[in-house]
Amino acid sequence: TDVKKIAVIAGDGIGPEVVAEAEKVLKKAEELYGYSFETEHALFGGIAIDEKGTPLPQETLDVCKSADAVLLGAVGGPKWDNNSKELRPETGLLGIRKALGLFSNLRPAVVFDCLKEASTLKPEVLEGTDLMVVRELTGGIYFGEKLRRQGEHGEEAVDTCVYNVTEIERITRQAFEIAQKRRKKLASVDKANVLETSRLWRETVNRIAPDYPDVELEHVLVDNCAMQLLRRPSSFDVIVTENMFGDILSDEAAMLTGSIGMLASASMGDSTDAGSFGLYEPVHGSAPDIAGQGLANPIATILSVALMFRLTFNYADAADAIEAAVAKVLDEGHRTADIAVDKSQALSTSQMGDLIVAAM
Amino acid sequence: TDVKKIAVIAGDGIGPEVVAEAEKVLKKAEELYGYSFETEHALFGGIAIDEKGTPLPQETLDVCKSADAVLLGAVGGPKWDNNSKELRPETGLLGIRKALGLFSNLRPAVVFDCLKEASTLKPEVLEGTDLMVVRELTGGIYFGEKLRRQGEHGEEAVDTCVYNVTEIERITRQAFEIAQKRRKKLASVDKANVLETSRLWRETVNRIAPDYPDVELEHVLVDNCAMQLLRRPSSFDVIVTENMFGDILSDEAAMLTGSIGMLASASMGDSTDAGSFGLYEPVHGSAPDIAGQGLANPIATILSVALMFRLTFNYADAADAIEAAVAKVLDEGHRTADIAVDKSQALSTSQMGDLIVAAM
Ligand SMILES: CC(C)[C@H](C(=O)O)[C@@H](O)C(=O)O
Ligand SMILES: CC(C)[C@H](C(=O)O)[C@@H](O)C(=O)O
Repeated sequence: TDVKKIAVIAGDGIGPEVVAEAEKVLKKAEELYGYSFETEHALFGGIAIDEKGTPLPQETLDVCKSADAVLLGAVGGPKWDNNSKELRPETGLLGIRKALGLFSNLRPAVVFDCLKEASTLKPEVLEGTDLMVVRELTGGIYFGEKLRRQGEHGEEAVDTCVYNVTEIERITRQAFEIAQKRRKKLASVDKANVLETSRLWRETVNRIAPDYPDVELEHVLVDNCAMQLLRRPSSFDVIVTENMFGDILSDEAAMLTGSIGMLASASMGDSTDAGSFGLYEPVHGSAPDIAGQGLANPIATILSVALMFRLTFNYADAADAIEAAVAKVLDEGHRTADIAVDKSQALSTSQMGDLIVAAM
Repeated sequence: TDVKKIAVIAGDGIGPEVVAEAEKVLKKAEELYGYSFETEHALFGGIAIDEKGTPLPQETLDVCKSADAVLLGAVGGPKWDNNSKELRPETGLLGIRKALGLFSNLRPAVVFDCLKEASTLKPEVLEGTDLMVVRELTGGIYFGEKLRRQGEHGEEAVDTCVYNVTEIERITRQAFEIAQKRRKKLASVDKANVLETSRLWRETVNRIAPDYPDVELEHVLVDNCAMQLLRRPSSFDVIVTENMFGDILSDEAAMLTGSIGMLASASMGDSTDAGSFGLYEPVHGSAPDIAGQGLANPIATILSVALMFRLTFNYADAADAIEAAVAKVLDEGHRTADIAVDKSQALSTSQMGDLIVAAM
């Protein structure tokens, strides 16, 4: 049989707890559908700093490169926050994105009907919200030259934001293609009234737009987008933007839905077609404050497995089964503490995982 | 008597309409309190491009420099959007900020109780929201070197983000001082896990924090801040951040309140003490789609006059009177179209202005 290799990076904080539940789901998918997965665990982030002296050991990169897909828990925590740059978990995150060529971060923000009350937005505003942020992930101010120097007015720091047309074109084409498979609307977000990189971004988007005549394109300034996400979230379909803006807007969009513990994400390379390599992870972070207590919500990580099945393996049956199982368990009223109204009735991480596996 | 000179820049779109109402308020304050204002109108933005060939004519700058304060309507519109950089209204805006040394942009985001229904947030989440974004306005990626060049992968564009300790220190001290006069909480927003400028920002904030022991300081990453503004808006008091992040977060914060047509802002230089020079303008833009129809809400501009009275002139009596008049008119149920539930009952721009003047 066709054995799929999955690199599993549990990471820090609640990472290992939520990843453990996702692995139960992998096993269940093998049982139910005859698929076969080989998982290989690798150290990454804070734990890799502690055990190997670097957030992204070469072995970890090798494991990822030899895998068909990567499942990531979460990385980081206060323990490593004051480390020098090379010894910070985030440096590992940026490093793995670059090393694996994952230039496209897909973050769906959907509303789970049964969790609408968890959003701070009015239900009628949220109604029908189902958007996807396509964030450029390996360029811009994240990766440009950085420096410190003495200037006229004391010490100064510099970050450089660079984009070339090739980088802009490949992410924009992916976004157009994703929009074609959805509601055929694309909002390209930039700050073209101020930034040169944004002007190149907008020119490039406009140049390739005629190749996707079925997609309705709008340009939205980033400050306006931060407002419109609040005012009319359901009017967005696909949003494509550069790295820094995408970081901010995708978190805002995720929080809108009230379902942040439930949202999965994919980081992809040259293609989002079936069979393409991808790294899958929950949108939420490592939540050091609740780590090790069995309180974390494993659903975002479990849904990351469903996304992996859909995008990388083309296992629609198993992906459907996972998503249906999650919906069923939630409909039955089961909740982890983060989404529970009555916290005293909340399930533990593994209880939630077990219920979802049973519902598959 | 002490004549205060106010440079009035009506600008584009709805700018002239809302500024006209603010001028009625100035007149009324003269009548009621014996103050004396000399207003001088100057061309700026799109209209200055059309009439003078530049968005910021030297005469306009001279008028502003010789004034005690500037009242600005709004600038920009689709007519000038595709102009070259030197002929765009935004270039004038950046130019005037720099030329007048207005490095600090104060944007209060408050909820008007009678307008709570206009927010897309649940009323219980919004309850008690009263925050102020202090945005650095003359540094960062807005003003760093920009260029286009041919690179290995085709054309590329570069923006440079630069901050020195002097720039960071002066804005942070202002934010601490403002927090001291409010609820004594300061959130400094950066992206210190990625950007060098943010690391210098955080170091500088931490270095000067001991000078303000009565203010509770937290550091919040910009992506997390975009989420927390949605999750717990009322927990913020003062937020200080760099130019680009401030642009995005202050618009998000303004939209949260549901009162965007009602929010005033001040751009200040070396001091926010009484007597300091400042430029005052509504948070909303030039709204070209409704310009010239008498539909615009003049309240944000009228409240900008109140802010000018408070910050630059120390005319607390007149400032109080304006704010009370606005509250009274709203309490009586008067609405312009943007905030009206029943649009057919909406007042025109000048009807609203007249009611507020009458209520003073
Ligand atoms: C941890 C940090 C470097 C990272 C980013 O900014 O990309 C995170 O916020 C994310 O969105 O994955
Ligand atoms: C028009 C634009 C250049 C400006 C800015 O980004 O500063 C505007 O968005 C603002 O916030 O005043």
